[in-house]
This record gives sequence, structure tokens and C-alpha cells, in this order.
Amino acid sequence: MIDYVKNPKEIEEKSFEIITEELGDKKFEESMGKIVKRVIHTTADFEYAELLEFHPNAIEAGKNALKEGCCIYSDTQMIIGGVNKKSLTKHGVQIFNLVHNEEVTKIALETGMTRSMIALEKAVADKNIRIFAIGNAPTALFTLKRLIEEGKAKPDLIIGVPVGFVGAAESKESIRDLDIPYIITRGRKGGSTVAAAIINAFLYMI
Amino acid sequence: MIDYVKNPKEIEEKSFEIITEELGDKKFEESMGKIVKRVIHTTADFEYAELLEFHPNAIEAGKNALKEGCCIYSDTQMIIGGVNKKSLTKHGVQIFNLVHNEEVTKIALETGMTRSMIALEKAVADKNIRIFAIGNAPTALFTLKRLIEEGKAKPDLIIGVPVGFVGAAESKESIRDLDIPYIITRGRKGGSTVAAAIINAFLYMI
Repeated sequence: MIDYVKNPKEIEEKSFEIITEELGDKKFEESMGKIVKRVIHTTADFEYAELLEFHPNAIEAGKNALKEGCCIYSDTQMIIGGVNKKSLTKHGVQIFNLVHNEEVTKIALETGMTRSMIALEKAVADKNIRIFAIGNAPTALFTLKRLIEEGKAKPDLIIGVPVGFVGAAESKESIRDLDIPYIITRGRKGGSTVAAAIINAFLYMI
Repeated sequence: MIDYVKNPKEIEEKSFEIITEELGDKKFEESMGKIVKRVIHTTADFEYAELLEFHPNAIEAGKNALKEGCCIYSDTQMIIGGVNKKSLTKHGVQIFNLVHNEEVTKIALETGMTRSMIALEKAVADKNIRIFAIGNAPTALFTLKRLIEEGKAKPDLIIGVPVGFVGAAESKESIRDLDIPYIITRGRKGGSTVAAAIINAFLYMI
């Protein structure tokens, strides 16, 4: 019988100690550090210490929106699955996604565009969304950029971390010039677990 | 206005071309290659070409169980969120998780053990599970190992890819000597998106 740590709190504390130790001299502002470490905790990938990029107002904007019980739109169900439900409820924060919406599926089939694009456009038309968490679809992030430029959306924060080989890096770079606070991962890496980790890090801070 | 690829099929095909090209001389048996590439597609992390380890019977065992419409237990909701629902339905495959079950939460609070352990034990008692997909909790994988050793579970395949710093690597190594087909990621890396990618790769092959 192998002896191993069974207490969840102990596992998490020990994990963050190891991460802090291995980050060594790399220092971050406190709140940023908590986000960076939680992303590394989720991926076991220290590259994220280099890849994460924060707009100067990202931390404050995210905290304020969440404290006020805002609405988050995520581009995948996986992000919703990964966010701490108790913390969401505690702060009155809602998170939703429309990729599996019937109308969205229908339009996507008719137009040959991704469901992520159609879903995001519908979400913006339906609700006041203060945080967007895009972890999968570059097309969703490009669509969000267009809607912001057209004055149809004005979020407090964009968590822009699509993963992938076609358009992901470009989509993330493209939101830098929007004058909207953002957190992005440079390059190809990112994903739903990264997006969920960033949201959870915020929820545990406020 | 930035020009970008909007067609989901085109995005996926182009992504797999890039992955195949960058893998270069690294060759895999056909089915294994499909799994490795889908994991890289999901993570944008080529390290997985080295980290994924396949038991000699893993591919055949997984394909047969899924073809027969088996039941999969996953240790997180995120894995369920990431698996292609249409493919599951098509093949009559079920996937479930009990981490949010009321009884599980109660016992976890009473014992101070992780909900993942309690949930897995309850799942094995309740159902005939032919594939386990463990993407998050080393404690779930250790528990599964014990139940197999006690003769309480005898799955066709273990997808053992917990991510993390405390127990993850050890939990994966520990299932090598069980004489049960497995797919693992060596070391710290892995996660729910990796587990979902492996299941999806299987579903697209059968």
C-alpha cells in the first residue's frame, strides 16, 4: 500500500509551496502571482510564468466586476465545469455559454461558421457581459474584438487564452489595441483549464 | 478587419497538418498517433509526444469497450464537458462523475479525504465501469488501484493523466504493475483537457 497525501487542503498548500520554490527569483505583484501560480498548478507547465500577459488595469477591473456579482461569458462548457461553483454562488457571479444553444447550432450549420462565433454574438445581444473568458476558440475572440469595435460590447475584462495552431496567437495579440483590460497567454498555449484557473484565482482573492 | 479561418473543419485540418509537420521524424503506430496528435492539438504542448505512455493492449481494449457502448467514469465534470456529446450518443457510451453527489460531499467532509476518492469508491460500488478517465486527482487513481487490487474493479482501460505536484507522477507510475491496459502521461503534466482529448480521439476512430 502506497502512502500518499489524502487531505485536499494539504495537497493544495504543498503544491503551491513547490510552485513558489521552483519559480525561484521570478517575482510577481501579489495578485498577478496568485493567478500565475494557479495556472501553473492547473497545467504543471512553468512556461505560463512567461506566457501570461496582464493589462495594467486587468486585476482591478476583474476584481471589481466579480465583487459586484457580474455575468461572465465563457466560450466552452469546460470552463464552466472548472470554475468553483461555491465561490460563484457566494459572490452572486453567473457564468454561461451558448455553444449548445439550438438556434446557434442551426445558424452555424447554415453559414459554415464556428458555433463559437455565433454563440458569442447571440450572448452579447442578450446580456450585459462584464467578463469574457475565451479558452478555446480564436474565432470567438476575433468576433468579440469586432463587436467591441462596433460599440456593441464593452466588457470590464477579457480573459483571452485560446489554445491552438490556427489563429490562436493572432487572436490574442489582436485584442491588445482595444483599450479594454485583458489577460492573455502569448503564443499557442492556453485552454479551458487555464481560463478556469484564472477565474478561480480571482474568486479566491475577492 | 483581420482575415482569419472561420470554418471549424478547415481549422482542425490545418491544425493537424501543422502538428504532423512539427512532429517531424517522430513516428507512431496509427491509432496511437491519432491520440498523441489530439492531445497536442488540445494543449499546444509537444512534450506530450514524449510523455504519453501506452500499455501494449490499450488501443484495442479502449476501442472494444467503446464500440460496445460502455460506461466511463471520469474524476471531473470538466472531462465530461470536453467530450464530444454527439459521438457519445452515436456509440451509446455513457460518461459520469460523482464528485458533486451529496452523499460523497458529506463523507468527504466527515473523513477529511478528497471527494475524488469517495466518489470513485461509490461509482465502483454502483456500476460496471469499463473505462476510467482520471485527469485531475491522484487520490482517485490511488483509490482505483486499491480497488483493483482488492478485486472490486476490473476495467478494460485506465486513462490515467492526473496533473499536479503532489502525488500525480507517483499515482500514474503506480498503475503500471496492475496488469490492466492503461494510457498515462509520465511526470507532472496531464489534466482534464488531456483526458477528454484521449476519449475524443478514441470516439473518432471507432
